[in-house]
Amino acid sequence: MKIKGKEGRALWFEKGAIKFIDQRKLPYKIEIFTATNVDECAFAIRDMVVRGAPAIGAAAVYGMVLGANNFEKTAEILRKTRPTAYDLFYAIDYMIDKIKKCEDPLDAANNYVEDIIDRCHRIGLNGEKLIKNNMKILTHCNAGALATVDWGTALAPFYVAAKKGKKIFVFADETRPRCQGLLTDWELEQAKIPHAVIADNAAGFYMKQGEIDMVITGADRITLNGDFANKIGTYEKAVLAKENGIPFYVAAPISTFDKSIKSGDKIKIEERGREELAVINNCKIMPDYTKVRNPAFDVTPAKYVTGYITEDKIMKKEEIKLI
Amino acid sequence: MKIKGKEGRALWFEKGAIKFIDQRKLPYKIEIFTATNVDECAFAIRDMVVRGAPAIGAAAVYGMVLGANNFEKTAEILRKTRPTAYDLFYAIDYMIDKIKKCEDPLDAANNYVEDIIDRCHRIGLNGEKLIKNNMKILTHCNAGALATVDWGTALAPFYVAAKKGKKIFVFADETRPRCQGLLTDWELEQAKIPHAVIADNAAGFYMKQGEIDMVITGADRITLNGDFANKIGTYEKAVLAKENGIPFYVAAPISTFDKSIKSGDKIKIEERGREELAVINNCKIMPDYTKVRNPAFDVTPAKYVTGYITEDKIMKKEEIKLI
Repeated sequence: MKIKGKEGRALWFEKGAIKFIDQRKLPYKIEIFTATNVDECAFAIRDMVVRGAPAIGAAAVYGMVLGANNFEKTAEILRKTRPTAYDLFYAIDYMIDKIKKCEDPLDAANNYVEDIIDRCHRIGLNGEKLIKNNMKILTHCNAGALATVDWGTALAPFYVAAKKGKKIFVFADETRPRCQGLLTDWELEQAKIPHAVIADNAAGFYMKQGEIDMVITGADRITLNGDFANKIGTYEKAVLAKENGIPFYVAAPISTFDKSIKSGDKIKIEERGREELAVINNCKIMPDYTKVRNPAFDVTPAKYVTGYITEDKIMKKEEIKLI
Repeated sequence: MKIKGKEGRALWFEKGAIKFIDQRKLPYKIEIFTATNVDECAFAIRDMVVRGAPAIGAAAVYGMVLGANNFEKTAEILRKTRPTAYDLFYAIDYMIDKIKKCEDPLDAANNYVEDIIDRCHRIGLNGEKLIKNNMKILTHCNAGALATVDWGTALAPFYVAAKKGKKIFVFADETRPRCQGLLTDWELEQAKIPHAVIADNAAGFYMKQGEIDMVITGADRITLNGDFANKIGTYEKAVLAKENGIPFYVAAPISTFDKSIKSGDKIKIEERGREELAVINNCKIMPDYTKVRNPAFDVTPAKYVTGYITEDKIMKKEEIKLI
């Protein structure tokens, strides 16, 4: 990914510590958050210094490096940070296995992270085939390089298409409450891909106007039948896409598929605090008396999904069981 | 409506001037905006000191009082303020007629405003019949007393139901970009009706969870075939309600029906500036480089509407032509 014109990553391991681009500070400023122990790594995951399922997985493998000497306790601490993020569990189990086999934890973690980046790049190569010149595409939340260390999932096809010289225009949902659309905006601005941020309420309007040709989002967890959990509001956009005859694709690495869960109604939805809605960029936008309800994710049934863009191929839901 | 426990109104005429509760300042503080001439009244309408189709109509009739001596020029100025608000044109034409008949402009304007309030109260009485005890109801934007001088349209049934002792719970969509859900929150807080504000993205989630029994919104303009223009995002909620088998009602006075327009695709949609999205409560939430697109309204096709709650009765779309 580009950061001020240079190649960079959302997080990396350096001198015994994990370095994160602090995503709570973006897009307003670029600050580095350093985690030198497991608790700081857990804080970074829980407080969304890092966000996005694959990047959380990367944070977790490096967290396991920091706590390798007491890896069962470390795993226990990290598992509690974000219950909806399946990659987190996948990454922790991967590291437990490597540590038990006496492999070097940092080598194992680095391999995991390079593998994520490679898979995202391949998601981009596969997804790019769906993109025709002059297409207008909607995305929700930020499933970009910031969410996956590099390349992204939903945004990877855009980066590949732009590198190939295709002209595209991206509508980025603001994605209240946490406004991760501004992270997508920041990434696309860095990459010089034409785009605009819209209120989440406006996505349906542009679909109905015929101004959106395709929707691509990421996923936090995909179940055996193709249902998937993702940022709150994804379900709304999927229903609207179907209603308007617009293809809706989910871009995610194979690690996001959780075949142990039969369907989406088994996924526990995390409710988060009122501050997420009431405060933006340290500014209070709601009075103290305002009560909110704040589900962080929703589940979109498989019937709204046109296909799943993975690193191997673009799949139909019937193919999930064959992975 | 209640304002700090006392009866009040969203706007009124006093000593040769129009007094508005400045809705740009709500819910953070209660301030009065005074318009002593036509340009100040036009500013109040354009800059959303006052908002909501019926309240804009009320502002317009009082604006015509201020500019009665040159009423054709006054009408021309006021007509340009908010092209989507049909009540505005209705109110201006009403005043032109009265002034041409040499009626006292202030008496005519007061009659118009009292009539609006009476109609809203009757919308409340009709709509209340749809509300069963313990219902959970979603509303979008603010179609409350603030939007109609008193009672409201979409909120009027809630006020009547609460007065009758029915228990209800209201989900108030935040309604980005301008967050008018906070006005609904403010009104319901003043009226002590249990409620919560949710991100616009969460409405579909709660519908799918079975936590929403009914949706009621207002309308800015309803066409002959039952299509209607309303705050951006209304279309999304209507599609989601239909998808989840939830009744969706539009509450509006007869004056909001524009039988001169056959269908919604003839309605011109106002696009507003980037500041609406980029700034909330004087706080910049988007970087300067962020480009936005910001349609203020959308059009919801009649097929998504269960019924139209008017002051006369609850209508089906087929009955609109009989008004």
